[in-house]
Amino acid sequence: MLEWINRYEDRAWQTTTDGTVRYALIGLGWWTLDVALPAIESSDLGEVGVLVSSSHEKAERLAREHGVDAGVDYDEFHEGAASEAYDAVYVGTPNAFHLEYAETAARLDKAVLCEKPMEATVERAERLVETCESAGVPLMIAYRMHTEPAVQRARELISDGFLGEPVSVYGHNSQPLLEMIPDPDQWRLDPDRAGYGTSVMDLGIYSINTARYLLRREPRSVRSTMASEHEAFSDVPDQSASSLFLLEGDVEMVTMSSQHAQDDTHLKITGTEGQIDLRPAFHGECSLRLSRGDVSVTVEHGSFDAEREMREEFDYFADRLLGDGEIYPDGRHGLRDMAIIEAVHESAETGEEVDIDGI
Amino acid sequence: MLEWINRYEDRAWQTTTDGTVRYALIGLGWWTLDVALPAIESSDLGEVGVLVSSSHEKAERLAREHGVDAGVDYDEFHEGAASEAYDAVYVGTPNAFHLEYAETAARLDKAVLCEKPMEATVERAERLVETCESAGVPLMIAYRMHTEPAVQRARELISDGFLGEPVSVYGHNSQPLLEMIPDPDQWRLDPDRAGYGTSVMDLGIYSINTARYLLRREPRSVRSTMASEHEAFSDVPDQSASSLFLLEGDVEMVTMSSQHAQDDTHLKITGTEGQIDLRPAFHGECSLRLSRGDVSVTVEHGSFDAEREMREEFDYFADRLLGDGEIYPDGRHGLRDMAIIEAVHESAETGEEVDIDGI
Repeated sequence: MLEWINRYEDRAWQTTTDGTVRYALIGLGWWTLDVALPAIESSDLGEVGVLVSSSHEKAERLAREHGVDAGVDYDEFHEGAASEAYDAVYVGTPNAFHLEYAETAARLDKAVLCEKPMEATVERAERLVETCESAGVPLMIAYRMHTEPAVQRARELISDGFLGEPVSVYGHNSQPLLEMIPDPDQWRLDPDRAGYGTSVMDLGIYSINTARYLLRREPRSVRSTMASEHEAFSDVPDQSASSLFLLEGDVEMVTMSSQHAQDDTHLKITGTEGQIDLRPAFHGECSLRLSRGDVSVTVEHGSFDAEREMREEFDYFADRLLGDGEIYPDGRHGLRDMAIIEAVHESAETGEEVDIDGI
Repeated sequence: MLEWINRYEDRAWQTTTDGTVRYALIGLGWWTLDVALPAIESSDLGEVGVLVSSSHEKAERLAREHGVDAGVDYDEFHEGAASEAYDAVYVGTPNAFHLEYAETAARLDKAVLCEKPMEATVERAERLVETCESAGVPLMIAYRMHTEPAVQRARELISDGFLGEPVSVYGHNSQPLLEMIPDPDQWRLDPDRAGYGTSVMDLGIYSINTARYLLRREPRSVRSTMASEHEAFSDVPDQSASSLFLLEGDVEMVTMSSQHAQDDTHLKITGTEGQIDLRPAFHGECSLRLSRGDVSVTVEHGSFDAEREMREEFDYFADRLLGDGEIYPDGRHGLRDMAIIEAVHESAETGEEVDIDGI
């Protein structure tokens, strides 16, 4: 037990501790600057070489403020400016711009770490994957739950049979978006920049992807309902959304997401013999509750806030570039999430059950 | 706040403290003998007059053991034996036998407290309601959550606007039935005695009914999936079941029930401004967690185990018979649950969304 408690420092996925990956950060919103950038700076295998933003002045100013060597604007990036200063790009722009930066990165032979969801539509996500595959550059989708220690412990326990047979999954991700970002014109509410919608693309994807990661079972069909009542959500269908999935092996999964509700993140997997409960699940400080029969154990990693989760993710990505491990959340993995999200929207639109094809 | 903490002893529903209701208990399983009987004995307004069982000898023996005056068998009950010794019946038999005991009680002019679900099918439940209505005898369905203090506090907070606008409901009720009752021939697995199935009738009904009670919104449509894999569940469709409901006002509700899974009971209601979380929710010692913004409050009533919940329920019922309040969970209220459960099963069978009519 003592070994199990201490073990996370081992990073079971780690293959190397040598080398450095230098990043160009693209899309300088609060997440990139306040979470991703300090995460890279404190990581073992990463450093920030270039900041890329809408204007040269802004990029240079932010580079100076954050101690980064170079700042370039989007046009300069596409022209290959400062390309000697980075080995990989981190794409943190609104969803609908991921493809263009990945295309340039691939042309410049740079590895790509792309935020989730991959792009605005399945079609554009497919182009993104194919672009990286054709160019032979590594592509990873930034699912930070995969390197979250509570989630990794859950994954290991599930592999070891902790649940017995899995029976059902419940995923919930809600937040009061307009209180967090009080701007009705923000990109998450604009389908041209966000894609299919807002709450499933931005929040529901955590439940879907973490369940896939933990159970290694893919959703095979979905029935969904969505609603947008607040005027700020008039252009997107899913201010809130609920879905009923069937996963491989007839595991039932229900998920709920809302951009206009009390904050809550929760993933619960119930099996014939045990239950695994992550709550909070998706926003840092993930707490893991394990129940089997009448015994319950709670595990908390107090130090894992969102920044440290990102640090783990960047070191995992760098490890894959520098060492010899495979990238688990690769482009094909992320593409399947896009197909699942498209099916969720199609079901809500048609009222019908939608089969989810393998991609 | 001090008043709010102390207040449950007030029993806001109470209209009288005078009088006694004498019960005949019908169906002497563990729940009736170990929970309902001591609950009545410790209640303010109730006492047990007669035990009714399959054999005269068993009924008399159990009556002696439990200090009850009379014990009669089912035939004797139907013939009116010992009818001067009780004012009301508590029907705790398998679902498919509720109607016949209610019919006799109505003929004998006795009030009826009937366990949930009301009967095996909507049709039989309708006959039960009509029988009691025609005879003019009071009928209550035994939803003990309605007098559970945590649930009552939740109800009051929701009335006062704690949630803002309700957005979504999650209900979960699972247990390892075969570990609790290791008998593959038990009535809960026999559709002739249980009705439409096992996990929705026995467990899912808690999520459905408590959500109805708390939100005062009725389910309008449902999409469901069910599975029975274990051989003991071969005669019922729903060893486990998951459903996606739309309630009045487009509130989304997802529910999950299983008779072959780790024990867990949970009801969570998320609103635009707050969240109410009951966990454990349905098996006594209900714990209430209130969240609004970044403040959370947890309320526990340590003394409310299942027996005390039943005591409250019996006193509520007796209060309605002796005083002048109306019965909230009356026959029509219970009948709607039956219609909802039938729709859940129909949706799982057909794969289609099923509209739920008012009854």
